[in-house]
Amino acid sequence: MKPSTKLVLAFSGGLDTTFCAVYLHKEMGYEVHALCVNTGGFSSEELRKMEQHANRLPLASFEVANRTQAFYDDCVKYLLFANALKNQTYPLSVSAERVTQAIAVAEYANAIGASAIAHGSTGAGNDQVRFDMVFSVLCPQIQIITPIRDLGLSREAEVSYLLAEGIDYNPEKAVYSINKGLWGTSVGGRETLVSRGVLPEEAFPVPVSKSESEMCSIRFLKGEPVALNGVELKPVELIQALESLAGPFGIGRDIHVGDTIIGMKGRVGFASAAAMILLKAHHLLEKHVLTKSQLLTKDQLSTWYGHWVHEGQFLDPVMRDIEAFLSQSQQRVSGEVFVQLHPYRFVLEGVKSDFDLMDPRFGSYGESNTLWNGQDVRGFAKIYANQAQIFNQVSVHHEK
Amino acid sequence: MKPSTKLVLAFSGGLDTTFCAVYLHKEMGYEVHALCVNTGGFSSEELRKMEQHANRLPLASFEVANRTQAFYDDCVKYLLFANALKNQTYPLSVSAERVTQAIAVAEYANAIGASAIAHGSTGAGNDQVRFDMVFSVLCPQIQIITPIRDLGLSREAEVSYLLAEGIDYNPEKAVYSINKGLWGTSVGGRETLVSRGVLPEEAFPVPVSKSESEMCSIRFLKGEPVALNGVELKPVELIQALESLAGPFGIGRDIHVGDTIIGMKGRVGFASAAAMILLKAHHLLEKHVLTKSQLLTKDQLSTWYGHWVHEGQFLDPVMRDIEAFLSQSQQRVSGEVFVQLHPYRFVLEGVKSDFDLMDPRFGSYGESNTLWNGQDVRGFAKIYANQAQIFNQVSVHHEK
Amino acid sequence: MKPSTKLVLAFSGGLDTTFCAVYLHKEMGYEVHALCVNTGGFSSEELRKMEQHANRLPLASFEVANRTQAFYDDCVKYLLFANALKNQTYPLSVSAERVTQAIAVAEYANAIGASAIAHGSTGAGNDQVRFDMVFSVLCPQIQIITPIRDLGLSREAEVSYLLAEGIDYNPEKAVYSINKGLWGTSVGGRETLVSRGVLPEEAFPVPVSKSESEMCSIRFLKGEPVALNGVELKPVELIQALESLAGPFGIGRDIHVGDTIIGMKGRVGFASAAAMILLKAHHLLEKHVLTKSQLLTKDQLSTWYGHWVHEGQFLDPVMRDIEAFLSQSQQRVSGEVFVQLHPYRFVLEGVKSDFDLMDPRFGSYGESNTLWNGQDVRGFAKIYANQAQIFNQVSVHHEK
Amino acid sequence: MKPSTKLVLAFSGGLDTTFCAVYLHKEMGYEVHALCVNTGGFSSEELRKMEQHANRLPLASFEVANRTQAFYDDCVKYLLFANALKNQTYPLSVSAERVTQAIAVAEYANAIGASAIAHGSTGAGNDQVRFDMVFSVLCPQIQIITPIRDLGLSREAEVSYLLAEGIDYNPEKAVYSINKGLWGTSVGGRETLVSRGVLPEEAFPVPVSKSESEMCSIRFLKGEPVALNGVELKPVELIQALESLAGPFGIGRDIHVGDTIIGMKGRVGFASAAAMILLKAHHLLEKHVLTKSQLLTKDQLSTWYGHWVHEGQFLDPVMRDIEAFLSQSQQRVSGEVFVQLHPYRFVLEGVKSDFDLMDPRFGSYGESNTLWNGQDVRGFAKIYANQAQIFNQVSVHHEK
Repeated sequence: MKPSTKLVLAFSGGLDTTFCAVYLHKEMGYEVHALCVNTGGFSSEELRKMEQHANRLPLASFEVANRTQAFYDDCVKYLLFANALKNQTYPLSVSAERVTQAIAVAEYANAIGASAIAHGSTGAGNDQVRFDMVFSVLCPQIQIITPIRDLGLSREAEVSYLLAEGIDYNPEKAVYSINKGLWGTSVGGRETLVSRGVLPEEAFPVPVSKSESEMCSIRFLKGEPVALNGVELKPVELIQALESLAGPFGIGRDIHVGDTIIGMKGRVGFASAAAMILLKAHHLLEKHVLTKSQLLTKDQLSTWYGHWVHEGQFLDPVMRDIEAFLSQSQQRVSGEVFVQLHPYRFVLEGVKSDFDLMDPRFGSYGESNTLWNGQDVRGFAKIYANQAQIFNQVSVHHEK
Repeated sequence: MKPSTKLVLAFSGGLDTTFCAVYLHKEMGYEVHALCVNTGGFSSEELRKMEQHANRLPLASFEVANRTQAFYDDCVKYLLFANALKNQTYPLSVSAERVTQAIAVAEYANAIGASAIAHGSTGAGNDQVRFDMVFSVLCPQIQIITPIRDLGLSREAEVSYLLAEGIDYNPEKAVYSINKGLWGTSVGGRETLVSRGVLPEEAFPVPVSKSESEMCSIRFLKGEPVALNGVELKPVELIQALESLAGPFGIGRDIHVGDTIIGMKGRVGFASAAAMILLKAHHLLEKHVLTKSQLLTKDQLSTWYGHWVHEGQFLDPVMRDIEAFLSQSQQRVSGEVFVQLHPYRFVLEGVKSDFDLMDPRFGSYGESNTLWNGQDVRGFAKIYANQAQIFNQVSVHHEK
Repeated sequence: MKPSTKLVLAFSGGLDTTFCAVYLHKEMGYEVHALCVNTGGFSSEELRKMEQHANRLPLASFEVANRTQAFYDDCVKYLLFANALKNQTYPLSVSAERVTQAIAVAEYANAIGASAIAHGSTGAGNDQVRFDMVFSVLCPQIQIITPIRDLGLSREAEVSYLLAEGIDYNPEKAVYSINKGLWGTSVGGRETLVSRGVLPEEAFPVPVSKSESEMCSIRFLKGEPVALNGVELKPVELIQALESLAGPFGIGRDIHVGDTIIGMKGRVGFASAAAMILLKAHHLLEKHVLTKSQLLTKDQLSTWYGHWVHEGQFLDPVMRDIEAFLSQSQQRVSGEVFVQLHPYRFVLEGVKSDFDLMDPRFGSYGESNTLWNGQDVRGFAKIYANQAQIFNQVSVHHEK
Repeated sequence: MKPSTKLVLAFSGGLDTTFCAVYLHKEMGYEVHALCVNTGGFSSEELRKMEQHANRLPLASFEVANRTQAFYDDCVKYLLFANALKNQTYPLSVSAERVTQAIAVAEYANAIGASAIAHGSTGAGNDQVRFDMVFSVLCPQIQIITPIRDLGLSREAEVSYLLAEGIDYNPEKAVYSINKGLWGTSVGGRETLVSRGVLPEEAFPVPVSKSESEMCSIRFLKGEPVALNGVELKPVELIQALESLAGPFGIGRDIHVGDTIIGMKGRVGFASAAAMILLKAHHLLEKHVLTKSQLLTKDQLSTWYGHWVHEGQFLDPVMRDIEAFLSQSQQRVSGEVFVQLHPYRFVLEGVKSDFDLMDPRFGSYGESNTLWNGQDVRGFAKIYANQAQIFNQVSVHHEK
């Protein structure tokens, strides 16, 4: 029996994966099954157009897998619990998305009995590593094919090849490459390719159209956002609604400078209004309801959680262990957070929570204390300084 | 021989320390030597007024110690190296200042042979602990006297007492208490006493008076700021010049919610334009010149550094150890950072540095790679996923 | 109605708590309810004697609460999951025990409606802080009474007082104070009071009586010990059986030098055969079944877990969060560990586990590799060194 | 001009590097310059034999570089400062050595203008990665050649090849491969290839010949060992003298189970008497002279230092940053440590240090306190428990 020539292609409808679709069939003889994994970035209209486009390609099949809910449940939720911002800046939108997509592709490849799996990543980014790693773990028996990385073709060469094959791909002459998902939009190109420069207004898919400030409130239940401006919503819907509300303010735009998995530095712009507001609102609520030790420990652990999501190590079991910590830490992260939305920025007004530890029954910072007296603090300070005092006396004595 | 009754009072000219000055002399019989330690927050005019005020009090002496440079050298510099923001928000302005002041007071008390030392802190804040701790370490033989904490008087009672003693202290009926220093101004009162509320415009000593965007550039040399808009300045001068430039934009205003040393939660407003810009500009430069492991390790260590500054543990020798790490890490943190100033916010445009690791000779993120090829990354990803792959295979096998 | 004079005394039958029992009733007029909390350190015979002793004292009631199982479930289990050794040496036996005892005492005081609660700790140790803290948290409304700490009496003075009250307490003239519990025995006195000296044979309650080596095996299921030498036992029974087996070898004896909660240094001897063997056997099994990232992260988190147990912070909710991490990390920590017992030492022979990641199917260290080839590792090493290479080239270039 | 065919071979005299020497010249046409880097593991006799052996091979040159001092200065010293034990077990002997050797080889290759560099590592271990990485960083322009990894020959095939080339290599039919250096000897083979089994007596190069206990004392100055039994020695000499003294007791033998850089698990036996005694003696001294925060922070940082040494990341600049921390932390790590040597184990008796914080002037653990009183501790405990108390009250209230 002839070996299977079934190949699953992680498909986005862009130039690279379009090239792959044709090349893998025509030049390498594969039966190409294209899978587009939606993590909340594609509208119905975009998906319809993608299907039309796919129908012009020599594909054995084309499927769209909607993994938006899984993306939230398995990853975004924990990024929120962790207040995860890579280098204190970037909400890890693409990093997390790519892993979710890779898992969906791997599962599909296993399900249809593919002997090969392909992605359209270049050799100079993070995505190639994330795809490769997830495939290695979940379908180690399946060969990984990466034409773009291996051939190193220019965009022009890809367009010419497609034209020669009868596919009139008219790449938008976009200067910027855009990636959209539930947790934000990333924007790369021109200014981000060098160490200085901010993205111009036109680089962002959603223009700034609001100039009058608005208020909004977000209710969290055990760390998850459950209501926006008093209206109960499922978390995925809430994120999308908040993006609609706050995106037109230009909130959550910034440039992330970071280390790629492969060791080079890179810059990428992003617009993540909902993610940034939720992350900061959630963090504020935590400052009111968690203890000092919880905040410190969560902070350290969360840095690693975000780092490993970024590095493609999502399938390492340490991630499940950290998620268990994070979930437990959210038991009392419930309450309402009040946010002012202004053009390009937002202001956290404060919180209201049954579990707020800033409770006037126990004293008021700098003003009054009801649970203890001055003598208690005097004793505390004396003992708390004890070791430094002993250290100092021993040192002074012997350093003379 | 009669025991010394010399007492050193940490003096700010406010109601509480004015009350202490009188009370300690009149009721407790001390020879009161008042010391005001300036950490960059007092103007010449303010100091002149303070001296006039001091002259009306029954003080044995009044001195002003200018410790602004020491404050920078011993603490602010390292906070900057550490990108220290308590809970990702607060530049630790007051925390650091109080320790510097306490050290100066302790040294003065030792120098003049005082038998007692006094501060005017209440029993509900952090400062009492910081003062007590530093005094315990540096002058353990000297008694600590804290009338405000021990008597628990209201402000009205203090004013009445002073009036009865012939001191007509007319407390500004300020709703807000203000603390100014090199690293920022803190503002507490009304809105900060509860969990929700932002400070109104009038709460801040410097009003927002600029509305047109400006550009500025900051040059760092081994982590220290050395030039502003191309003009070389000493760090202390640069911080002050930057504050003058950016303060009127309302940049760096926020409310910090945090854990006091004594376990209660508290909120405090602040306006720290120079500190926030320098911290973020410095961090951006580091993202370009430090390695991934340096950034991760610094981040973890810096959280502890900031935490211990806040907790009054500045004299623990671990702080010197962390400072050695931080200093070494700054060897290549040199270059220029470009910043846009807008009302209430600033935007980092990017950097220019000889040590920028984002160097096009070695590839361009997502676009091209010159040091390695696709085959290298394929091998990397395979090996990097090796353990998760083994883990997965072992688990799948045995969990059936 | 007269206020309650019910007082609960944490009672051990030793001189200090015997003194407290009499003093609190006779001098302070309390109705003293003594509670002895057994955490696995008292034999039936010892408890019988303690009851006889208690009957001679002016107690309103005497109860023994057996909390051995709770001690294991709530604390020892997690110390084992964490491989917790304070300063890499001490299994935290007493630290953990004291907290369990304090919780039981607090619950009892709440249950019987006591208005006061007493413990017999001195002012120079850790236990006073642990007791005080747990009582502050669980019964803040109840007054804490600490005669030994407050009066600062010598042992002789206590004996005289008791004699005068008709209690002929004949303190064993023991040079060493001993504390026994499920997780080990601590021994303090003479040699441990200074910085040099090892405890003599006679200081330990269990003499070394075995000289011939023995083998033993321990089976773990999800991190918990479930079988000893092939015999299934409940964890508490297993720990006790292993102590009987290994204690007579003198295994697990050492001196811990550490920081007290109050800042001074202290040394304490201990004999914890079962704890040391279980901790090291468990750790070895983990090295085989957990990933690199799990081991590193667990290690960092566990240091804090042990530290906080030691510091009396067991009731901070961060401990529950860490316990969630630890429990999740144990999902595959199942298998058998083989141990040689020798006089004063033991040797870990190795493990057998279904989840062993050292699986010959995937290669053999230094010998063969089946999942990858040399080219893969070449690529891995190149990319893994990428950033240091770029750093080096940039530095060399600009430092000239 | 013909391109250079100069190749530097990292040479140990074993079968693999002997094969490489011949193969690289005969089959690949290189001018082979063999360099043996001694890190303290080779005796003069062994080096003389190695030279004789080298003279029989088709080498263009043969050199021995003695890097023992550099190995101590650049790496071992910091491992000692860090109390570095991989997985709390292994002193990282080989890990550290390999990096030092690779650096020497790279510098030599740069110095003589080689166009290629070769090592004899297999594809299943750590050394290949360490060599590759150091070469990538220090001589990125030089090609790396790895015949053993690439050809995957059996030992028999290598012997046959050599014989055919006239080299009668008579490999000791050693079951165990041995690696000796200043910081210890590693032993791999048979028992270490599976998850259970201890190495037999004959596997170790130094037999156990001492059965009578001995005492020894080690004096440290700022963290470095400077005198043994009262005799001042340079650190390298002291390590060697201590190994001679303690090695014949069989001290410091164990099996390390760990994660390779490439993700598989591996076991390796080792005998490191001097390293283990010095590490534990040094750690004990630190427990007496460092503060609680220093010990905790050093512990966390040291875990990463050891991890990165192991992973071949020694040239990442973060290592220099950590070394600065470590050096600073050693300022007061001076004093004498007393050690009992017994067959297969050692006992730390204690320390004598001018900087000992366990100073009776300041109280005695559990016995007496002179710097504070019971009231102080009562206040401390109250405040230290403050947050957990508030947390508990808030939670209890709202969870009803």
